[in-house]
Amino acid sequence: MAKNKKQKLQRTKARRPRGFEDKSADILRAETALIAAAFSVYDRYGFEPLQTPAFEYADVLGKFLPDEDRPNVGVFALRDDDEQWMALRYDHTAPLARYVAENYDALPKPYRRYQAGSVWRNEKPGPGRFREFIQCDADSVGAPGAAADAEMIILAADVMEAAGLSTGQYVVRINNRKLLDGILEASGVPNTEAGAVQRLQVLRAIDKLDRLGAGGVADLLGTGRKDDSGDFTDGAHLGVDGIKAVLGFTTASHEDRAKTLATLEALMGSSSHGQAGVDELKMIDGILEACGYGPEKALFDTSIVRGLGYYTGPVFEAELLADIKDKKGRPVRIGSVGGGGRYDDLVSRFRGQAVPATGYSFGVSRFASALSRMGLIEANEKAPVMICVFDKSLISEYFKMAAELRASGIRAEVFIGAGNMAKQLKYADKRGSQLAVLMGSDEMERGEVTIKDLELGAEMAKAIEDNKEWRESRPAQTTAKRENFIQTIQGMLNS
Amino acid sequence: MAKNKKQKLQRTKARRPRGFEDKSADILRAETALIAAAFSVYDRYGFEPLQTPAFEYADVLGKFLPDEDRPNVGVFALRDDDEQWMALRYDHTAPLARYVAENYDALPKPYRRYQAGSVWRNEKPGPGRFREFIQCDADSVGAPGAAADAEMIILAADVMEAAGLSTGQYVVRINNRKLLDGILEASGVPNTEAGAVQRLQVLRAIDKLDRLGAGGVADLLGTGRKDDSGDFTDGAHLGVDGIKAVLGFTTASHEDRAKTLATLEALMGSSSHGQAGVDELKMIDGILEACGYGPEKALFDTSIVRGLGYYTGPVFEAELLADIKDKKGRPVRIGSVGGGGRYDDLVSRFRGQAVPATGYSFGVSRFASALSRMGLIEANEKAPVMICVFDKSLISEYFKMAAELRASGIRAEVFIGAGNMAKQLKYADKRGSQLAVLMGSDEMERGEVTIKDLELGAEMAKAIEDNKEWRESRPAQTTAKRENFIQTIQGMLNS
Repeated sequence: MAKNKKQKLQRTKARRPRGFEDKSADILRAETALIAAAFSVYDRYGFEPLQTPAFEYADVLGKFLPDEDRPNVGVFALRDDDEQWMALRYDHTAPLARYVAENYDALPKPYRRYQAGSVWRNEKPGPGRFREFIQCDADSVGAPGAAADAEMIILAADVMEAAGLSTGQYVVRINNRKLLDGILEASGVPNTEAGAVQRLQVLRAIDKLDRLGAGGVADLLGTGRKDDSGDFTDGAHLGVDGIKAVLGFTTASHEDRAKTLATLEALMGSSSHGQAGVDELKMIDGILEACGYGPEKALFDTSIVRGLGYYTGPVFEAELLADIKDKKGRPVRIGSVGGGGRYDDLVSRFRGQAVPATGYSFGVSRFASALSRMGLIEANEKAPVMICVFDKSLISEYFKMAAELRASGIRAEVFIGAGNMAKQLKYADKRGSQLAVLMGSDEMERGEVTIKDLELGAEMAKAIEDNKEWRESRPAQTTAKRENFIQTIQGMLNS
Repeated sequence: MAKNKKQKLQRTKARRPRGFEDKSADILRAETALIAAAFSVYDRYGFEPLQTPAFEYADVLGKFLPDEDRPNVGVFALRDDDEQWMALRYDHTAPLARYVAENYDALPKPYRRYQAGSVWRNEKPGPGRFREFIQCDADSVGAPGAAADAEMIILAADVMEAAGLSTGQYVVRINNRKLLDGILEASGVPNTEAGAVQRLQVLRAIDKLDRLGAGGVADLLGTGRKDDSGDFTDGAHLGVDGIKAVLGFTTASHEDRAKTLATLEALMGSSSHGQAGVDELKMIDGILEACGYGPEKALFDTSIVRGLGYYTGPVFEAELLADIKDKKGRPVRIGSVGGGGRYDDLVSRFRGQAVPATGYSFGVSRFASALSRMGLIEANEKAPVMICVFDKSLISEYFKMAAELRASGIRAEVFIGAGNMAKQLKYADKRGSQLAVLMGSDEMERGEVTIKDLELGAEMAKAIEDNKEWRESRPAQTTAKRENFIQTIQGMLNS
C-alpha cells in the first residue's frame, strides 16, 4: 500500500499549458483545406512559398505587436547558448523582412512569397484567444505603387471565394493611412517621429468605433476615457476641432466607391499627404473596376484603420458578412477574418534604404471554423470500414482484406485493440464506421464474409415502427462472397 | 556625416539564429507533396489527424531524447508566468502520450492518429543538422498485439511507395527489443530498472555498428572506447561471453525471413523474453506474407536497434536503397529515413496502467530532399507569365489580362516593381518565366498584344548557327489578338 501511494504521488500529471489547444480531426481537415485553397490562389498570382524558422533573434523581430499597450503582451523568448535572445515569431511579416534584408541581392525584385504556419503570442489567454495560432500570408516586397496594393485586395477577395464564399457573403473594406495622416496634419499632429505615439493612439481609438461608438472614441481622441470597471485609458489629446475632423473622416465613406472618392478629395483640401492618399485609392479603384471587383466585393471604408503601427499607406480588411448561428441558433458576427496593407519601412530598418512592401494575412483557425459552421468546407472523411477480429488465428487474412480494401481506395482497418466482439462493434460505432466486416473460420471455408451496416442498424433500432420495405431494400446485415466482397462494400457505402 | 554614421551603428543586423533554416519554394513544394502522400496513406489505414501545440510542460515531455549522453543536447525551455517550465516538443510521441492520458476516457481505443509538424532540439547545429525539423508520424495507442506492429511496418512500406519509390529502392528492416533482452538476460543484464542504463549503453553501442564496425562496438560493449580525437566513451561493461553473444546476435539475420526466424529461435534457447520476441516476429511475418510484403520490401535485421530508450518490443527502420548522386556525381548513401516500434510504457507513466502503443515516424526534410534529387517528387510549378508594364497609364488593363489568365488556370503576374523594360525582362528571366506579355497604347488600339518567348530567346541567343527552320516553327516573339491571347499563350506554354 505504502509503495503504491508513493508511486501515485510521483506520477506526472498529463496536462496542457494554458492558452494552447489540441486540434482534432474535423477542424484540422477544414484548416488544411482552407490553406490549400489559399495557396492555390497565391500560386496562380505568381507568389512562391517560403518557410522561415520558428525562432528569430529578438532584436530582429522588433516591437511591432498590435497591442503593445496591454500589460501582459509579448513574445516567448529565451537566451541561446551564446547569450543572444531568441524569440518565437509573432507574425510572418517580421521574419519576411529579415529574410529579404539577409538575401537582398540574390532575390528577384519584387520578391513575392506566401507562408502559412504557427505564430506565438505570450498574452493572457482567454476564450477563443490562444497563445499559438496559424496565420496564412502573401506579400510583395520591393513593390512601390498602389497597383501592388490593388493586387492584394483582389487576392484577398479571391481567397474568400476559393474558400467557398459567394459574392455577398464577404466584403473587402479599404482605407488609406495617408488620408488619416492628412487629417491629423491639419489638426496639428505632424507626420514625423515626434507625432508617432499620438498617431498610434488615434489609430487605436478609431479601431474601437465598433465597440465604443462615437462618444467613447471621442473621449479616447481627447483627454481619455474611464471604462465601466473604472480603469482609465489616457487619450490622444487632440483638440475639439481635431476630434471632430477625425470622427468626420471615419464616417465619410459610402457604398459607392466613386462618390466616396469625391467626398474624400474635398475633405483632404490642401494636404499633400491626403491628396496622395486619394490618388492611390483612385488607382486601386481603376484596377478593381477593370478586373470586375465591384462594390459588392470591395468598398472604401474610412473607419478601417488596422491597429498595427507599421502600416504606411493603403490598408484593408476582409470581412465575413454571412450570418452564422451558434449552437443555440443565435446569430454570431464573425467580422474581419483577415487584412493587410502597405508597410514601407519594415525592411528598410535593416538596410537603411527604402524597400516598399504590401501584404495580406488571415487567421486560419478563426476563418476555418466559421466556414465549417457554414457548411462550406467539407471536413468529413468517411470513417474506415472496420474489420473485426472474430478469430485471432485468422489475423493475417483480416489484414489481407484490409489491404485489398485500401488498394481500392476504401479507408479500412483491422481492430488491433483488446476486446471481444461487443467491444469491437462499440469501437466501430465510436469511430463512426458505417460498415463492419466479420468472418469466422466456418465462413472462411465457405468463402464468405458477413458485412454489418452499423448506421442502418442504429437507425432501425431507433425506429419505432417496422418499416419493412425500407429494411428489405437496404439490409442491416448481408453475406458477401469473399472473392468480390469489395464490390459489395462499395455498393453499401454508396447506397 | 556624424549623423549617418550613428544611424548605421544603430541599424539592426538581419541574421538567422544558428541551426535554423529558411526553406525556399522547391524544397517546400517537395515537402508538401511528401506529407500529402503520407497523409493519404494514413487516412486509408483509418488514422485521423491530430495537432498538439508546440509547447508542453517540461515534466510532461520527460527525458526521452535519443542522445542524452551528449553534452549540448536538450530542449528549448522557458518559464511561464506561473513559474512552470514549458518546453518546445522534441518529437510527436511525448505530446501524443500526454494527449491520450489527458483525454483517455473520451477517446476510442485503440486511438489512431497522425501528425506532422516541426519539432525542436536544442543541440549543437552542424551541416544538415538543424535545431528545427519536420517529423511525420502515425501511432496506434491501446494496441497490445504484434499485429499492430505489423500494420506499422506495411504502413511504412506503403508510405515509401506513395512517395514515388519502387519496390527495390527501399527496404524496411525489422528487429525486436525482446530478442536483445533475451540475449542480455543470458549475459547477466537483468530486464529490470536496475539494468536499464546498461541496456541503453548496449543499444547505443550496437547502433554504431555501421560507423565503428564490430571491433569498435566490442570496445563499447566492454570497458569503453577511445576515439581518434582521444575522447573516451565509457562502455557497457559486459563480460567477454556477453560481448560475443551480443555481436553474434546482431549478425544472426539473413535475407530469408523464415530462415532468420529459425536461427533466432535456436539462439534464444530457454529465454522467455527471447522466445516471446521470436513469436511476435512470426506473427508479423505471417501478416506481411498474407498482404504481399515479401523480403524485397521487409526483412528481419538484428543489427537494427533504434537508439531510443523507450522502445519495448518490435522496432524497425525504413531505409532508402536507391543510389543518389551528389552534385559532383559521387554516390550518396541516404540510409534510414524513418523508423518506429512498440513503446508500451510512455502513456502508463501518466496513468499507472498499461497502455500499449506502437508507431512510425519519418523525417520530412531528409526524405523529401532525397526524393527530389532522385527526380521522384515533382517540385516544379511553372513560373508565372509576366505581364510587363509598358505604359503606366494602361495598368488597369494589364491587371485585367492577368485576371483573365488566372481565371484560365495560368499563373500570371503584372510587374509591380520599379524599373524600365530591361529590368522587367530581367526580373521575368530570374523568376524563370517562359513568356512575357507586352502591350503599348498603339497595340491596344489595334487590339493586339506582343508575346515574347523568353526561354526560346535565351536558347537562340546561345545558338551559334542560325537554325532557320526551328526559329520559324516556334518564334521567339509573336503578335496575338487581344481577344484570344489566352489561347495563344496556352499554345506557347504547351509547345
